[in-house]
Amino acid sequence: MTRHNAFYAQSGGVTAVINATAAGVIETARKHPDRIGKVYAGRDGIIGALTEDLIDTSAESDEAIAALRHTPGGAFGSCRYKLKSLEKNRAEYERLIEVFKAHDIGYFFYNGGGDSADTCLKISQLSETMGYPIQAIHVPKTVDNDLPITDVCPGFGSVAKYVAVSTLEASLDVMSMSRTSTKVFVLEVMGRHAGWIAAAAGLAGKQAGDPPHVILFPEVEFDQDRFMAKVKQAVEENTYCTIVVSEGLRDRDGNFLSDAGTTDAFGHKQLGGVGPRIAEMVKTELGYKYHWAVADYLQRSARHLASQTDLDQAWKVGEAAVEMALAGKNAVMPAIRRKSDEPYEWDIIEAPLDQVANVETSMPEDFITDDGFGITDKARRYLEPLIQGEAWPPWHRGMPVYVKLDNKAVPRKLKTDFTPS
Amino acid sequence: MTRHNAFYAQSGGVTAVINATAAGVIETARKHPDRIGKVYAGRDGIIGALTEDLIDTSAESDEAIAALRHTPGGAFGSCRYKLKSLEKNRAEYERLIEVFKAHDIGYFFYNGGGDSADTCLKISQLSETMGYPIQAIHVPKTVDNDLPITDVCPGFGSVAKYVAVSTLEASLDVMSMSRTSTKVFVLEVMGRHAGWIAAAAGLAGKQAGDPPHVILFPEVEFDQDRFMAKVKQAVEENTYCTIVVSEGLRDRDGNFLSDAGTTDAFGHKQLGGVGPRIAEMVKTELGYKYHWAVADYLQRSARHLASQTDLDQAWKVGEAAVEMALAGKNAVMPAIRRKSDEPYEWDIIEAPLDQVANVETSMPEDFITDDGFGITDKARRYLEPLIQGEAWPPWHRGMPVYVKLDNKAVPRKLKTDFTPS
Repeated sequence: MTRHNAFYAQSGGVTAVINATAAGVIETARKHPDRIGKVYAGRDGIIGALTEDLIDTSAESDEAIAALRHTPGGAFGSCRYKLKSLEKNRAEYERLIEVFKAHDIGYFFYNGGGDSADTCLKISQLSETMGYPIQAIHVPKTVDNDLPITDVCPGFGSVAKYVAVSTLEASLDVMSMSRTSTKVFVLEVMGRHAGWIAAAAGLAGKQAGDPPHVILFPEVEFDQDRFMAKVKQAVEENTYCTIVVSEGLRDRDGNFLSDAGTTDAFGHKQLGGVGPRIAEMVKTELGYKYHWAVADYLQRSARHLASQTDLDQAWKVGEAAVEMALAGKNAVMPAIRRKSDEPYEWDIIEAPLDQVANVETSMPEDFITDDGFGITDKARRYLEPLIQGEAWPPWHRGMPVYVKLDNKAVPRKLKTDFTPS
Repeated sequence: MTRHNAFYAQSGGVTAVINATAAGVIETARKHPDRIGKVYAGRDGIIGALTEDLIDTSAESDEAIAALRHTPGGAFGSCRYKLKSLEKNRAEYERLIEVFKAHDIGYFFYNGGGDSADTCLKISQLSETMGYPIQAIHVPKTVDNDLPITDVCPGFGSVAKYVAVSTLEASLDVMSMSRTSTKVFVLEVMGRHAGWIAAAAGLAGKQAGDPPHVILFPEVEFDQDRFMAKVKQAVEENTYCTIVVSEGLRDRDGNFLSDAGTTDAFGHKQLGGVGPRIAEMVKTELGYKYHWAVADYLQRSARHLASQTDLDQAWKVGEAAVEMALAGKNAVMPAIRRKSDEPYEWDIIEAPLDQVANVETSMPEDFITDDGFGITDKARRYLEPLIQGEAWPPWHRGMPVYVKLDNKAVPRKLKTDFTPS
């Protein structure tokens, strides 16, 4: 049996439970010292590999690694860096191999979403394209819930829980004030292209009249007249209206209703501010007093409100990734398979990475009610299991106890520097 | 011993624990059936009294009333209605007496902040001014934490906990991304006149370099140059900067920054909050990529993250209000007295209502560090006890279980309607 070191890195937007996946990877690797030497984490994702900025996770105690289960954010840093094709930037691949060789890295675990799966796929081809033997396993993570094959992406269930609970709580607030003051509450949530997160708000309500009264999905072209009619009806019937709007809401020309004007390294537009825009529109058209909130990072970092189901899945995909590597696999991703809705039963299967990378799944059309403003029973059956269980962190003096790793750097072996483009 | 019914109402912005106070009032009243008949709740605060829209809380089970302890929002509805002086609107007082007489109301419990204390004080004077015998007790509640005499206002501790925890969690998120992407996170919190809530964010950090790196208080005139220098320094020293800004931030002319009515780079009217405004300013001046969140109602309705200390105090002021009434008191408010910081020890004392009504307390100047961007050890000693303990609600199928009362109306006895002005 050969023995190699492993590389693990976090990529893209972080979540409340991505560190639980890190714990799954590292704890499982530690059970196999005969096969896996050290787990080196990339500082700031793949950039850590390119710059030979590796973190020695073996310097962390078992307790510290276990505490990653209840610590939000990305413990080793993350990035939104996408490798170009071999043809376009061969130097990058040569550098990676140089670093991997120098540190005897035979396993590559990349923890991210669709763009990261593409990076991972390119790494998995290094033995073929560049003659460097490596096993690359992609480990799913994204609050956007847009990876194919897997039933759900770890990170999503906790955002879903946060959004459902926050929608319910804020609705009780606005309801209290609605007959005498504020009648409309708007909550803006994440979701650039798909309305998964907005849909989760629908779990706040169980029957007619319950909030949220209007969900604005990126999948449904915004029609101001129909929207105003719906808001007016909700206020007349319930005294108030809770609106949940996805940041990715678009008008009939396909333009985002709110566009902060900047783009990230993947070319995505940085969005934000459709919530206040919608609120102001309601005030102008209907005269209702409003309040609005934009949850932004709060929704994806709220480890205090994480879903136990999500946490379990996040850890398990980490464990499964290592087991797949030990079984000799390459270019695969552990995916969650749903076996039943209630009780929710699931296991982990192996997804071929070339069927994952750069494939963005949409929310099924039949998750949205015919009027375009709510979720169907089918959506509810899908979503509800994902928010089950409360994964309460430990608390000390009124605050959650989140671990801060030492993140000790592995001594560099290469003489050359490399600047990622 | 005479026996009368009691009137209880909620006033002003609601909180995560105002219903716990309602439970304290109703549960304590139920222990004294010889003295207190029924507790009638005003639907939508004092408006319910003026319109003879009373809720019969005796129709609710003990279990339902107990569940108010863990249910956010205002269970009976609230309002922002302030009684005018007797000289200016004598008809209102006559109407109140008419309603109170019709329903044999001898005790008046009003649960609110400073404006509500003024209303309560006017009611307490009815026997003197109008010859109607009533005992009026004000029950403190406000996330603004600006009532005098009491150590803290119930509702504030839970907002403080929410803001401190959210600041910590979002900071772990932005920290993960900061070396490669987003460097600045801005969280806008409530507090139009005083920086109590913004100050609570300071509990997220314990030592130099911890977030939040900048707190913008309404008490400190906004100086853009000094602010930018501070943000730049924080990013250079820590790779990221977490900014918590109070909605009440003002410029050197005393204008709210949120009222600025400016347009963004695209010619759109700048909508809403000071949070996005500050973020955009940082981007323009320093070029840092940002994210921002506006917590709005989420912060004051987040019962899932309530402080146990706050909850205990909220219930206790309700109990104490009834006990004061039974002891024959009028024109008083149960206030919390701090006996020691650590361990936090407190009891309830009696505050004369005329020393409470219309007196708005400020945050002490020495709670803010000399540079104006942080909290002092003194502030920490004051704030930390208030967020202690986690008052977790019960959960079912992934969601908190919040009670919905029947709110059965008391049959009207008066023939005349009344429209509050």
